[in-house]
Amino acid sequence: MLAEIMQNIKRQRPLVHCIANYVTANDCANLLLAVGASPMMADAPEEMAEVDALCDGHVLNLGTPSTARIEAMRLAGRSANASGKPLLLDPVGAGSTSFRKNAALALLDELQFSIIRGNAGEIQALESGKMDLGGVDANAKISCLSARRLSQRKRAVVIMSGERDVVTDGRCIYRVFNGDAMMRRVTGTGCMLSALAGVCLAANPAKPLEAALAATCMMGICGEHAQRRMERQGGNASYRNYLIDAIDLLTPEELEVEARYELE
Amino acid sequence: MLAEIMQNIKRQRPLVHCIANYVTANDCANLLLAVGASPMMADAPEEMAEVDALCDGHVLNLGTPSTARIEAMRLAGRSANASGKPLLLDPVGAGSTSFRKNAALALLDELQFSIIRGNAGEIQALESGKMDLGGVDANAKISCLSARRLSQRKRAVVIMSGERDVVTDGRCIYRVFNGDAMMRRVTGTGCMLSALAGVCLAANPAKPLEAALAATCMMGICGEHAQRRMERQGGNASYRNYLIDAIDLLTPEELEVEARYELE
Amino acid sequence: MLAEIMQNIKRQRPLVHCIANYVTANDCANLLLAVGASPMMADAPEEMAEVDALCDGHVLNLGTPSTARIEAMRLAGRSANASGKPLLLDPVGAGSTSFRKNAALALLDELQFSIIRGNAGEIQALESGKMDLGGVDANAKISCLSARRLSQRKRAVVIMSGERDVVTDGRCIYRVFNGDAMMRRVTGTGCMLSALAGVCLAANPAKPLEAALAATCMMGICGEHAQRRMERQGGNASYRNYLIDAIDLLTPEELEVEARYELE
Repeated sequence: MLAEIMQNIKRQRPLVHCIANYVTANDCANLLLAVGASPMMADAPEEMAEVDALCDGHVLNLGTPSTARIEAMRLAGRSANASGKPLLLDPVGAGSTSFRKNAALALLDELQFSIIRGNAGEIQALESGKMDLGGVDANAKISCLSARRLSQRKRAVVIMSGERDVVTDGRCIYRVFNGDAMMRRVTGTGCMLSALAGVCLAANPAKPLEAALAATCMMGICGEHAQRRMERQGGNASYRNYLIDAIDLLTPEELEVEARYELE
Repeated sequence: MLAEIMQNIKRQRPLVHCIANYVTANDCANLLLAVGASPMMADAPEEMAEVDALCDGHVLNLGTPSTARIEAMRLAGRSANASGKPLLLDPVGAGSTSFRKNAALALLDELQFSIIRGNAGEIQALESGKMDLGGVDANAKISCLSARRLSQRKRAVVIMSGERDVVTDGRCIYRVFNGDAMMRRVTGTGCMLSALAGVCLAANPAKPLEAALAATCMMGICGEHAQRRMERQGGNASYRNYLIDAIDLLTPEELEVEARYELE
Repeated sequence: MLAEIMQNIKRQRPLVHCIANYVTANDCANLLLAVGASPMMADAPEEMAEVDALCDGHVLNLGTPSTARIEAMRLAGRSANASGKPLLLDPVGAGSTSFRKNAALALLDELQFSIIRGNAGEIQALESGKMDLGGVDANAKISCLSARRLSQRKRAVVIMSGERDVVTDGRCIYRVFNGDAMMRRVTGTGCMLSALAGVCLAANPAKPLEAALAATCMMGICGEHAQRRMERQGGNASYRNYLIDAIDLLTPEELEVEARYELE
């Protein structure tokens, strides 16, 4: 199943539009190229409708929000909902400031997303509307319920990243066991997962659950591959390079064989 | 001939001002340092005149355009035209959205550029004023004519990047045979070529054709060097590092010997 | 002494807010993760007060200034001064344009910073209020006096980076002998030192002089470690990765043993 999701990327080479943040935009673009997609990084409100006409899907990332960038997200999202192009939201920091939480909630109110990808604090903030000041990983069980409720309410697949990633469409809950602790020591691995899920979605728009699961397993597997390549003198900068390299080299067959997940 | 272009960089260590895009700004800055120049990355309209007074040339990159950034380009360009500092335009995405095409055309109307660097879709969009929706590499012969016409009309050297790079001043047409397929799998290799051409130009302002040819050969040769360094586990992230490293290590003598181009 | 500064980072894992520039934001975020801190990259004026409530300190970097980003700096700084969170200023380019110099001076007038980190040209421009057009490293003795005077006037520790880094609280002057010439050939090593000093400060807010000295020695030592790892084919891109890796691997004990500085 997962191999097919990835084969569709290699076959279709989707053009994925990202409203990125300037901290991780370069890594996300290289990751998109690594997996066989074409990145289009654009955030001027003036060109969002045209970009939608060209692309196969959108990834909206709230990492470095500004009023203009949020307006661009609304415009890209409206065009996408009208044209049927799939949308993914990464509500970076929605658990940290009400500016981001409110921006994310407004986007979720107005637009129909196929996938939402965040950590436990972000998902809980969106689900409860309340701020989580710090205690992000509070309770695995509670956050899993939050993910499912948010998924049901917004009719979107939710990827909740953490020590164990969770993927849910509101009914099924998958737990993913791939991954490596070093991933948390590289900036933007969450953004990269969102970008990758956006690619899987763009190439498989009718299968958001499978796309989300495939992307989550891919990132985790590549995190494991990157770890195996680490040398004694390596640190998080080397690991970052190895992680993107691993995405470049991963085959659909490896994804199928190495994916470790269970349906709850 | 090409060696001298590069020796002038090493001798003069030009300060090159870039209005960059936030996706590839870091790579472009490191590439400028690698080749022996000093980067000045600045895009506030308020300081463009002062920046022009300090720098030896400007690279204007439309990668992540915004109204403010385009205004900064106009102001930097006006100062440059008044002071005689050379200007290079990289019309990223001018073949994709009319927002970018119109911004690029307005800059080309108002300002005198020494070099324009784009891919076939971008060059054709600027030459014809029409949008190219997708079929970027349409026809090598037609795009080559487009490059020459744009060069003549705007009295600027045109670098048209592609499988085979083309450099023309409207009369001569050079075809460059250096390069490596992996370059298209790293984000920003086009931006990097533009930045490099901006450096060559800043150190050789009276020789835009030779500067453009030297930069194009340098990038291609370094792409070949980077390929030779690739290991079995390497992917596009490693390749990106090797590419910038190769610029750092390239000598003027190697450039002269390894450049492969022909005059049409 | 320096080991303790670093141990406090490992123990407290401070959350450090950076108003970064888009050229070096990714490297600064990875450096913060490498040393054991959490980066929060945010520059929307709307969320600065909330960000201050969450974080343990702020790093304000003028690398790619805009009116909005400078306003965000003022707001973050005001909140920080009210809440007692420590502030660091990196006045990138204050020696190059009056736009940046005036922005930095206005921030220094309104806000109380614990540390200011710049090169000789930047420090002299802030101290004298006059522009330094080019001759940045003018005279080591004069610039050292400038650093001390600026420190006294602004009641802030000053780190003045250069061939030999200087750290002063207006009375003591430390000269740091760690470092490597390759550091000047990587973009953002100044920004990275500022980010690192911001982390040392956030974990040791009552000891800005020791925090500044520790950060300066750490960067220099890691520059030396990175140099030892360089291979024949390596250039500045490899060096950049090795530098961040070295921060990841450095221990407090190594910092204590390898730091080379003298009190003037």
